[in-house]
Amino acid sequence: MISVEEARARILEGFAAAPAETVPLAAGWNRVLARPVLARLTQPPADVSAMDGYAVRAADAVAGAVLRVTGAAPAGHPFAGAVGPGEAVRIFTGGFVPAGADAILLQEDAEARDGEVRVTETVRPGRWIRPRGLDFRAAEEVLPAGRRLTARDIGLAAASNHAWLQVHRRPRIGILATGDEIALPGDPIPPGGIVSSNAHALAALVTSGGGEPLVLPIAPDDADTIRETARAARGCDLLVTTGGASVGEHDLVQSALGPEGFALDFWKIAMRPGKPLIWGRLGEVPLLGLPGNPVSALVCAVVFLLPALARMQGLPGAGPRSVPALAGADLAENDRRADHLRATLERRADGALVATPAARQDSSMLATLARADALILRAPFAPAAPAGTSVEVIPLAELGV
Amino acid sequence: MISVEEARARILEGFAAAPAETVPLAAGWNRVLARPVLARLTQPPADVSAMDGYAVRAADAVAGAVLRVTGAAPAGHPFAGAVGPGEAVRIFTGGFVPAGADAILLQEDAEARDGEVRVTETVRPGRWIRPRGLDFRAAEEVLPAGRRLTARDIGLAAASNHAWLQVHRRPRIGILATGDEIALPGDPIPPGGIVSSNAHALAALVTSGGGEPLVLPIAPDDADTIRETARAARGCDLLVTTGGASVGEHDLVQSALGPEGFALDFWKIAMRPGKPLIWGRLGEVPLLGLPGNPVSALVCAVVFLLPALARMQGLPGAGPRSVPALAGADLAENDRRADHLRATLERRADGALVATPAARQDSSMLATLARADALILRAPFAPAAPAGTSVEVIPLAELGV
Repeated sequence: MISVEEARARILEGFAAAPAETVPLAAGWNRVLARPVLARLTQPPADVSAMDGYAVRAADAVAGAVLRVTGAAPAGHPFAGAVGPGEAVRIFTGGFVPAGADAILLQEDAEARDGEVRVTETVRPGRWIRPRGLDFRAAEEVLPAGRRLTARDIGLAAASNHAWLQVHRRPRIGILATGDEIALPGDPIPPGGIVSSNAHALAALVTSGGGEPLVLPIAPDDADTIRETARAARGCDLLVTTGGASVGEHDLVQSALGPEGFALDFWKIAMRPGKPLIWGRLGEVPLLGLPGNPVSALVCAVVFLLPALARMQGLPGAGPRSVPALAGADLAENDRRADHLRATLERRADGALVATPAARQDSSMLATLARADALILRAPFAPAAPAGTSVEVIPLAELGV
Repeated sequence: MISVEEARARILEGFAAAPAETVPLAAGWNRVLARPVLARLTQPPADVSAMDGYAVRAADAVAGAVLRVTGAAPAGHPFAGAVGPGEAVRIFTGGFVPAGADAILLQEDAEARDGEVRVTETVRPGRWIRPRGLDFRAAEEVLPAGRRLTARDIGLAAASNHAWLQVHRRPRIGILATGDEIALPGDPIPPGGIVSSNAHALAALVTSGGGEPLVLPIAPDDADTIRETARAARGCDLLVTTGGASVGEHDLVQSALGPEGFALDFWKIAMRPGKPLIWGRLGEVPLLGLPGNPVSALVCAVVFLLPALARMQGLPGAGPRSVPALAGADLAENDRRADHLRATLERRADGALVATPAARQDSSMLATLARADALILRAPFAPAAPAGTSVEVIPLAELGV
């Protein structure tokens, strides 16, 4: 058995960032930049007005002065001339400041008359002017490679004149659920059977993590069928299997895929839920074999698959983010397996976050997992800890999981 | 001028949850349930084994006893007979516990011989059996209406035998950017012009918030064109405009849309960035007029549009989530407008979250917004506050914004 950290490091070693593809700006949200975005222009392109008012020479614009209005400079319509002594040009937010002017007289500090304007508040030089390049300058790197793009970033890429972006291709993840006992939702359920949930939950997790799921047909516990179904994952960036990972006679994934050239790296980790976890390579395709229990499968996916998806998209691919909390109940002494307790989160009146583990942590109980807000991390051999002890928790909802 | 809270309440009043649509389970991730999901079966459907081992009568399975193995019960293949006195049935995780058996003897606590098994550890009654219905029971509500579906929820809906889900239709949001000075990225930029960023950033924000953006062509500052372009938003759940919201001569949205039956509710809020914000109704379509400054537009969208999107999807639609932090720099006294300071977040060694505002908060500076991690909330008339003061911040990245 190897530790969670070693397992994750070995898994992550197996992946590099997927190559870049070109997408339209409008499709760039939540993708990861493969190349930096360099501004193609300077913003603002000239000194512009930050307010509605009058472009003036500050030396002239003292309280009581009357200036002659010689033109207008709304946004998008620069004034062709210059502002001479005793002159003013009507200007609006975003309008280019005409030559000669060095400040903006706010319209609320001015009284407009017939072709003239009377200054009611003295203007300071430079006031209400946004200098050229205040936001960014041409050739400046406005967004670095390796950044997952937010809505703000899309706006910034647009403003810097990019209609296209170079992003890492989405990783394509084959998902193969195995087991004689499972049926697709709505399909006839065989005697002794249950409805398959892992493939669908994992597909949603892959989508949430930025990948493209390819859900393969369910493979019964039959080596030939498993082999044949797994072949459909050629060309995928990763094949994820569920079920068939432990040592029982009916755990077939390893044995079925042996003749296909499956090279095992490890298959046991010191983790709960989820001890039997296969990691290896099926020909060119990395293979992550998750346990068949739905809770084990999803917790292992949070701990190993999401970081792998991040790595394939050009991100570092660290373990899931954890935050400090206080245990809401007594925690038992832990054995040698790192534990992940399903827990609800509550914020106390004093601001402290309290994580209360579900009373029963059976790895078949999917409803308990769905109702959990977080996983409490318990290190191997962690001593018993009373309620109120500081713990680290992985919040789940922010992962979309 | 009305407060941010009153403005949000009045905006949210204008929206109800969109009607339901049927989507395949696989398309349900991150959608909001319009009807609860009731389990269509009991899980597990029978008492099942939690481990690989032998189904036994606990009374027989004392250390040293030898039991006759009469059959096998792997998952998906129930054993048809019963376990009689002195008998055992080979069983695997998920296998149905045969009649007569009341406990599982772990395979590591047993020595298999020719057709027999020797017990090396005495078994307790009920041990390693998951009782029927442990996870959920038929007709139980496993997922409530109004829930945004996680990957775990998709698994739970699958396990309870749903191939289809009823979710709220995605809200369709028309986006209309106005201004003579703006051009699409990559298009020729007119003299005095800049590249349009608001429409694209808002479209990404709408996507992030679960809506479907409909980006309309840019309308120049011309009443007829604005009117005609806005007509394309009929059938949308909301029309969002940017630019043309303040009182200058070139602010045309209100005046242009008057003849189209535009009914104004309010247009000024006590907020920075973003004072000029239009809220009203264009015929049947609610209209939210955002300021033209990119920072103002995005901050107003976080504060008003995201909650409206949530409401249209059947969620309550509260203001954006804020978390406590410590100010990383001195904060100036605030005036009567609620302020939203762009800030970076850092976690100090002692675990405290520190929010440091950008030195310059000009509302045209999109790069500063893109680099910010959060917005520091400053209430109207908040007194000056030294570095280290407790503040509330809105983290941006978790919103996809």
